[in-house]
Amino acid sequence: MILITNDDGIAAPGIRALIEVASAFDDILVVAPDSPQSGKGHAVTLNQPLKLRKVQLFEGIEAYECSGTPVDCVKLAKHVLAKDQPINLCLSGINHGSNASINIIYSGTMSAAMEASLEGIPSIGFSLLDFSFDANFEGAKVYVKKIIRQVLATPMTDCKLLNVNIPSCPAEDIRGIKVCRQAHGLWEEDFQIGTDPRGDHYYWLTGAFVCKEDADKADHDIWALDHNFVSVVPSGHDLTHYHYLNDFKYLENIKE
Amino acid sequence: MILITNDDGIAAPGIRALIEVASAFDDILVVAPDSPQSGKGHAVTLNQPLKLRKVQLFEGIEAYECSGTPVDCVKLAKHVLAKDQPINLCLSGINHGSNASINIIYSGTMSAAMEASLEGIPSIGFSLLDFSFDANFEGAKVYVKKIIRQVLATPMTDCKLLNVNIPSCPAEDIRGIKVCRQAHGLWEEDFQIGTDPRGDHYYWLTGAFVCKEDADKADHDIWALDHNFVSVVPSGHDLTHYHYLNDFKYLENIKE
Repeated sequence: MILITNDDGIAAPGIRALIEVASAFDDILVVAPDSPQSGKGHAVTLNQPLKLRKVQLFEGIEAYECSGTPVDCVKLAKHVLAKDQPINLCLSGINHGSNASINIIYSGTMSAAMEASLEGIPSIGFSLLDFSFDANFEGAKVYVKKIIRQVLATPMTDCKLLNVNIPSCPAEDIRGIKVCRQAHGLWEEDFQIGTDPRGDHYYWLTGAFVCKEDADKADHDIWALDHNFVSVVPSGHDLTHYHYLNDFKYLENIKE
Repeated sequence: MILITNDDGIAAPGIRALIEVASAFDDILVVAPDSPQSGKGHAVTLNQPLKLRKVQLFEGIEAYECSGTPVDCVKLAKHVLAKDQPINLCLSGINHGSNASINIIYSGTMSAAMEASLEGIPSIGFSLLDFSFDANFEGAKVYVKKIIRQVLATPMTDCKLLNVNIPSCPAEDIRGIKVCRQAHGLWEEDFQIGTDPRGDHYYWLTGAFVCKEDADKADHDIWALDHNFVSVVPSGHDLTHYHYLNDFKYLENIKE
């Protein structure tokens, strides 16, 4: 069985595109948020109960909407809905908008896939570089299909998480796939500051992504996408900065 | 200036303990959530405006409560409140409860510290291994002070993020500090299933952390904490699983 989720919510066109492609390969279970959950990162709902409602949105497909976050959806799928059935693959997306570079840590789409990978389930997050509701997923679907087929034929035994980002264009304009690292980049933020109807200030997050790679580097996901390749980043959940373990060893010797 | 935040909310005793220690070193700016935000991971608030309210909870300290997540607090501090002042250090916590091992990815405390580190600010998340409101922070404060002093004396030039977890006991019972890696572990989840007043099912997340390390491994944070050491894990935000980049290169050659 393939578990499908997303962070744009169960009504988003991107999850329908993913279901259309994936249902050719195996039985599908859909568990997705009942409202948009973009930017929810790895949030879980601890302080309140979750609701699950069966929906009939996708013909012949078992599907549920959940009141929680993308990570909650994966936990409910694994531990309640598919408690007695093995999930062979988790697919998250297709996200409306890029999850390349640092976006992976803010992304509910990628956090859902990571949560499944923690449980030992091979997992792929797919994202299209167009955040509009009316994004065209036809080109993306061609590559989603290729990658699902290949991952089912060549099981992900060690690394269980892939971050796949896809240029927004017809499939014939995509130059292929690049397996690469996460680019160094960040959001240069700003806040729209306004006054609410009660006369109080409010602050509304805005900003622009800025790639911080040197121009001569071609081994990262932003380079791949800028050159019209699909980017595939094998990803994990160990945040240890191994390179600097020794640099901080002096802390073991402080006396005062 | 030192920025202080947390995920337990501005009224939690842990942030007061951290302010008490840190205010001996530099001017302090506190920006913390107005409600508990445990388990919020790297969530940011995109779809609604944020509110900031000045509070007078800590004598002589400039402090604000924010309606958003811990990461929102850091963004507002950096880009609105301290727009024209350098933040030399960001401290998050002291968290009520462990953020060792995989907890780092769910933790609002650590995500706030990571967000500041992305901006180039040296950042430390502190957590005490006692999740109760009445936790005793006296032992932890001794080590928080030692670590802040040392990090100010030996600037964090490359790795800008430390995940510090502290055993819950008097300082004299703590055996010292271990600089170590993030242990492999996960939450074995369960859901409490009940019926709400309307007769609908609800699902409430519960579970227990399980360390998945071999017993002979002594280089990780769970080992350190089990042996009454403070654990310090130098951490980053690059999730690329470099070890497996080559394993997936075959995806670049798929034709269909």
